[in-house]
Amino acid sequence: MTGGELGLSRRQLVNIIGRAAGASVAYQAMTSLGYAAESGYKGPIKLSPAKPGASVVVLGAGLAGMVAALELRAAGYKVQILEFNQRAGGRNWSLRGGDRYTELGGATQVVDFAKGNYFNHGPWRIPYHHYAVLDYCKRLGVTLEPFIQVNYNAYVHNSKAFGGQPQRFRHVQTDLQGHVAELLAKATNQGGLDQAVTKEDRERLLEGLKSWGTLDTDYRYVASKATSDKRGYEIDPAGGLMPLAKPSQPLGLNDILQAGMWAQVNTGNVYEFQSAIFQPVGGMDQIGKAFEREVKPMIRYGVKVTKIEQSASKVTVTYVDAVKGGAPRQVSADWCVCTIPLSILSQIEVQVSGPMRDAIAAVPYGASVKVGLEFKRRFWEEDELIYGGVTQTDLPIRNISYPSNGLFSKGPGVLLGGYMFDNVHAFRMTSMSPEERVRAALEMGAQIHPQYKTEFKSGVAVAWHRVPFTNGCYARWTDALREQHYKNLCAIDGRIVLAGEHASYIPAWMEGSILSSLDAVQRLHAKALSA
Amino acid sequence: MTGGELGLSRRQLVNIIGRAAGASVAYQAMTSLGYAAESGYKGPIKLSPAKPGASVVVLGAGLAGMVAALELRAAGYKVQILEFNQRAGGRNWSLRGGDRYTELGGATQVVDFAKGNYFNHGPWRIPYHHYAVLDYCKRLGVTLEPFIQVNYNAYVHNSKAFGGQPQRFRHVQTDLQGHVAELLAKATNQGGLDQAVTKEDRERLLEGLKSWGTLDTDYRYVASKATSDKRGYEIDPAGGLMPLAKPSQPLGLNDILQAGMWAQVNTGNVYEFQSAIFQPVGGMDQIGKAFEREVKPMIRYGVKVTKIEQSASKVTVTYVDAVKGGAPRQVSADWCVCTIPLSILSQIEVQVSGPMRDAIAAVPYGASVKVGLEFKRRFWEEDELIYGGVTQTDLPIRNISYPSNGLFSKGPGVLLGGYMFDNVHAFRMTSMSPEERVRAALEMGAQIHPQYKTEFKSGVAVAWHRVPFTNGCYARWTDALREQHYKNLCAIDGRIVLAGEHASYIPAWMEGSILSSLDAVQRLHAKALSA
Repeated sequence: MTGGELGLSRRQLVNIIGRAAGASVAYQAMTSLGYAAESGYKGPIKLSPAKPGASVVVLGAGLAGMVAALELRAAGYKVQILEFNQRAGGRNWSLRGGDRYTELGGATQVVDFAKGNYFNHGPWRIPYHHYAVLDYCKRLGVTLEPFIQVNYNAYVHNSKAFGGQPQRFRHVQTDLQGHVAELLAKATNQGGLDQAVTKEDRERLLEGLKSWGTLDTDYRYVASKATSDKRGYEIDPAGGLMPLAKPSQPLGLNDILQAGMWAQVNTGNVYEFQSAIFQPVGGMDQIGKAFEREVKPMIRYGVKVTKIEQSASKVTVTYVDAVKGGAPRQVSADWCVCTIPLSILSQIEVQVSGPMRDAIAAVPYGASVKVGLEFKRRFWEEDELIYGGVTQTDLPIRNISYPSNGLFSKGPGVLLGGYMFDNVHAFRMTSMSPEERVRAALEMGAQIHPQYKTEFKSGVAVAWHRVPFTNGCYARWTDALREQHYKNLCAIDGRIVLAGEHASYIPAWMEGSILSSLDAVQRLHAKALSA
Repeated sequence: MTGGELGLSRRQLVNIIGRAAGASVAYQAMTSLGYAAESGYKGPIKLSPAKPGASVVVLGAGLAGMVAALELRAAGYKVQILEFNQRAGGRNWSLRGGDRYTELGGATQVVDFAKGNYFNHGPWRIPYHHYAVLDYCKRLGVTLEPFIQVNYNAYVHNSKAFGGQPQRFRHVQTDLQGHVAELLAKATNQGGLDQAVTKEDRERLLEGLKSWGTLDTDYRYVASKATSDKRGYEIDPAGGLMPLAKPSQPLGLNDILQAGMWAQVNTGNVYEFQSAIFQPVGGMDQIGKAFEREVKPMIRYGVKVTKIEQSASKVTVTYVDAVKGGAPRQVSADWCVCTIPLSILSQIEVQVSGPMRDAIAAVPYGASVKVGLEFKRRFWEEDELIYGGVTQTDLPIRNISYPSNGLFSKGPGVLLGGYMFDNVHAFRMTSMSPEERVRAALEMGAQIHPQYKTEFKSGVAVAWHRVPFTNGCYARWTDALREQHYKNLCAIDGRIVLAGEHASYIPAWMEGSILSSLDAVQRLHAKALSA
């Protein structure tokens, strides 16, 4: 029996089951209904009514903080939020023309993008299995559009292979798969797998490899109409009496092996990057703005938390004006959900137990740097026929991501000109001035797109270690750190619970932040009811 | 030197080169500028001025006919178009709520879709390398959006494998690649490739396979965090103190080989289906409508061509009212571009040479059938977390394609519930009534989506062999037929030239139709100037 047969949506049915039989049965029901068995997200939470008059102070109006505020207020808690910035959203943040951003050290960038253009220097993609983010977007009216991750006409680039020339993704992908298939077919035909695979399966394997690797009747991967129907032609099939199609010549096995682009062609197969993958229409910050619309009356903007204390009966948070400083002020509540990044929280006096304090201090933060570049025209579309997607390179910029929105439009376009996420290059970029970062990204990118030199309009560069409200991009856990500190970080300490991507197993992703918050408020609520 | 350095767009530069140095140099220039060296499309054509008073009659207001009319009028020809239907667009056609469609045999379907929903029962995708279609869309103001072809959370389904249970694409894709990598690594390590590959390359190969196939340190493909980071988890990483992640169990090599889903997981690697791939916002027919806006004053709608004659000085076309018949009328012009599908043209008296007449009669037409199904809600999104993309099955319906537009929206949704393109199943479906086709698609699809049974709202089924104005879906050339007839079909016969997807090497695609037309009008114009 399905919900449909009852005239109910899955969600309605699961809610009914949940109310009638409890969460674990509801979970089973969802699994059997084909819902996200894998996910920590089990659909919208609905907290039971709070004790009359119970209050919560939420620290930080990023996604975790706003989720907590939204759900706790719905249960009847009096909620207030303290936020460092003059806006909500936290790292859910985009930059547009006219925006000013001052980083640690004082450098101020005034964004000079054309109207309608934006740059997602924080989160930029939403995987299809980030169910909590997707569901909040749906409930809060954030319209999503496909993000193009893999583009077969974009490039893979290894500065030490193919004479430094970027290769079309479709060429490397097709040829790598073809050569693998040919080698495996050869080994199979020569008896190399007689021990490992039954005769019947060997025949199936050979038949499959022929199709999958586009091998000829002799199990060879060679230039042909068939291989060109995957990698593209030297001259495409056309119309009328135009020149006849001409197959393209595959890259050689040796060249493919020397280039070592296995990870690059595999990107689209990674769970977090698989199609379908999405972005909000109009910029990633539309999510933060949608939450903000819901919780705005609860937010006190522009305040810096300086101390968090708790007693047997309440939590007291001391704060000052984030810009002017001045006299400390205090706010008290029965409970506290603290979503301040550990990179900031570790600098604040927090009255929690030793294990939680140790956990707060233990986790290093990733140093990602993102560079947004605006060009006078979308030359990647007009000249190179790349519509959305990502070019991957071994240069420190690592990625050039072409916008998935405004496709085929005229006028200036903004691309992600660099995403440095390994320590060495991110640190190096972080130590530069914003202008130097932009210049470095331009110089590197010009090795792939010579048009950079003449088409550049303006750029902006965000080094997350120098972002005043977070001092880093995301919590960089190791297995050893998790083993030692994760539970202590997440456990409710008296009247305080932490939430955010740092209190999750999905660091750096909005989903981690939201799931962490949903889990934290449910546990806090249970404790508040039983207290 | 690039166009950018001159402050010119590629297209401007190529146009200048073309005018100064001729088409072949312009072609070389485009190649060096990175433009579509492969394509028959070299950017917008610009015919030189026609002889004063020269006239052309175009038969058919599909894409080929309207391209011809647009470009010939721009050169100064007096152009008129005769069109069978009361609309332009031909097979570029979508169905919406309220539309009536009567097929051969008289069955009339009145489409009952909700406002805003549509079904692309003709063309439904535009590959990134169909440059002519993309460029006309840009010039005519047709907004395009990404079409989601591959969805890792959609299914691959073989009714004879895995107990008939559909499998998530991500599972089969990851496991197939993993097992292939493990087998090849095994053969390599056991010396099976010592003759074929150098020692250095063998080491590179093993290293690459480990990454690409997600093998463990012993080159085995097994359940792990790493393989789950590709195929997905049994329990996903989550937030706070939610249940810990649990790796998923890969499908076994034997099961994968028995299922034989090699072609299915390879679909996204096919040149014509590779990402990025597009659809017009609001329905594929937006392209036909955009052309129609440009050429509407030239179109005579609702007329059926009954005879095409030519003399040394003109072409005379006889036609009747397409519905009422009645007295034949005639139109004459200096030249004729005939885009009538061969399946229709072969039934008409056409005064052309024997070889062209033989060619017209020689080509069979594909019998594709498409079924559009509207459901009360988007259960594939709500229950199964499939947002766009295609499920592939061995059942006769072959594809279920979930809409790429209106993602995450509430209310009824329309999916492609079947696309029968092999003879046997397309013929069988063609012989059914529209209601029977819809019912058959529902019964088959319900094996994959049980929700079909309760969520179905209405359906529409188009069997292209029974479409009155085309009698088939597309020209089904074979190599032997091409060898014998293609040049004769495309050659200008006196004052008549043929155009359309049937006069191209890209049959069934809009790109073939447009390229064919561009080639035909350029040749016809050259002949007209020299006549």
